[in-house]
Amino acid sequence: MPAALDELIDALRVLPGVGPKSAQRMAYHLLQRDRQGAGRLGRALEGALAHIRHCNRCNTFTEAEVCDRCLNPARDPQQLCVVEMPADLAMMEQTHAYRGMYYVLMGRVSPLDGIGARELRLDRLLARATDGTVQEVILATNFTNEGEATAHYVGEMLRARGLKVSRIARGLPVGGELEHTDIGTIAQALVERRAL
Amino acid sequence: MPAALDELIDALRVLPGVGPKSAQRMAYHLLQRDRQGAGRLGRALEGALAHIRHCNRCNTFTEAEVCDRCLNPARDPQQLCVVEMPADLAMMEQTHAYRGMYYVLMGRVSPLDGIGARELRLDRLLARATDGTVQEVILATNFTNEGEATAHYVGEMLRARGLKVSRIARGLPVGGELEHTDIGTIAQALVERRAL
Ligand SMILES: [Zn+2]
Ligand SMILES: [Zn+2]
Repeated sequence: MPAALDELIDALRVLPGVGPKSAQRMAYHLLQRDRQGAGRLGRALEGALAHIRHCNRCNTFTEAEVCDRCLNPARDPQQLCVVEMPADLAMMEQTHAYRGMYYVLMGRVSPLDGIGARELRLDRLLARATDGTVQEVILATNFTNEGEATAHYVGEMLRARGLKVSRIARGLPVGGELEHTDIGTIAQALVERRAL
Repeated sequence: MPAALDELIDALRVLPGVGPKSAQRMAYHLLQRDRQGAGRLGRALEGALAHIRHCNRCNTFTEAEVCDRCLNPARDPQQLCVVEMPADLAMMEQTHAYRGMYYVLMGRVSPLDGIGARELRLDRLLARATDGTVQEVILATNFTNEGEATAHYVGEMLRARGLKVSRIARGLPVGGELEHTDIGTIAQALVERRAL
């Protein structure tokens, strides 16, 4: 097999969930049927690597040092909502029930995957939450085991610093994920959040 | 969502079997956890597009105008084995039961996918098989419905030009694919090929 093809098949395996057989199928498909798409994907990867960084304030993906949402003066700087991933933030926004700030963990505590406080860089969340302006931190991690463990850990850490911490209500089904929940349920869970 | 991230998620959907949710998951994974891998994949795509082409004689993926196998003087130029994909060629080679030449269709007749004789560019196979040196064409397409239809179509086309055409024996299980068959069965199927 030509070296450049070998390397493409190997390289496709950096994608989560892609094993040797699908990598081969993908490479053949791209080279045989969609060279234009392959070029587009190559440029998109290059572009994303060059331009996508983490917001200095909320940690979500952005092209600027600080994202537009964090710079929006219409948002309430006294509330900070902690979510796991950008998709969760997008769901919160769709409820139109929250006008405060966000912090995106970009993950969750997951001992089995070796992801703890250090890997999640919770020191950055701590610095963000203790800026002197934030009055309440709302924990909106998922109600999965890992999301609950994350909320517990983050809650303890922030309460120890004297912050008021709340958890969105268990309006979501147990084991549920924000991304797969209807907007109304999420909105209600936000209203019913309880102090920790 | 930043434009470069949007574009990456869209671009990942050129991969077969990747829908919007997996594209998002892949993009987050690359940007958050494997930027090195993302860079590697981008370069691999670029490298494959720049260097991978089809062999002028056997149509398989290669970096040269004519691949090493087609240039190998130790192989029998009077036999031409027709397979669907490069992976099938690799399986044939592993049997060590064949020392002739190959032609890789890079697909199969598939009316449902709109792939017929023209899309498979069977005119190129015809030109290859009627070079005056090839004495026998061995059809080694899969024993799936589409592989059988392909063998039938190609067989008729080549016999009409006076070529001797054979089909590897149905030693493979019905519905079976070369790629998922043990080497011994493939070798036996090759020995028991029947004239068409
Ligand atoms: Zn931000
Ligand atoms: Zn060749």
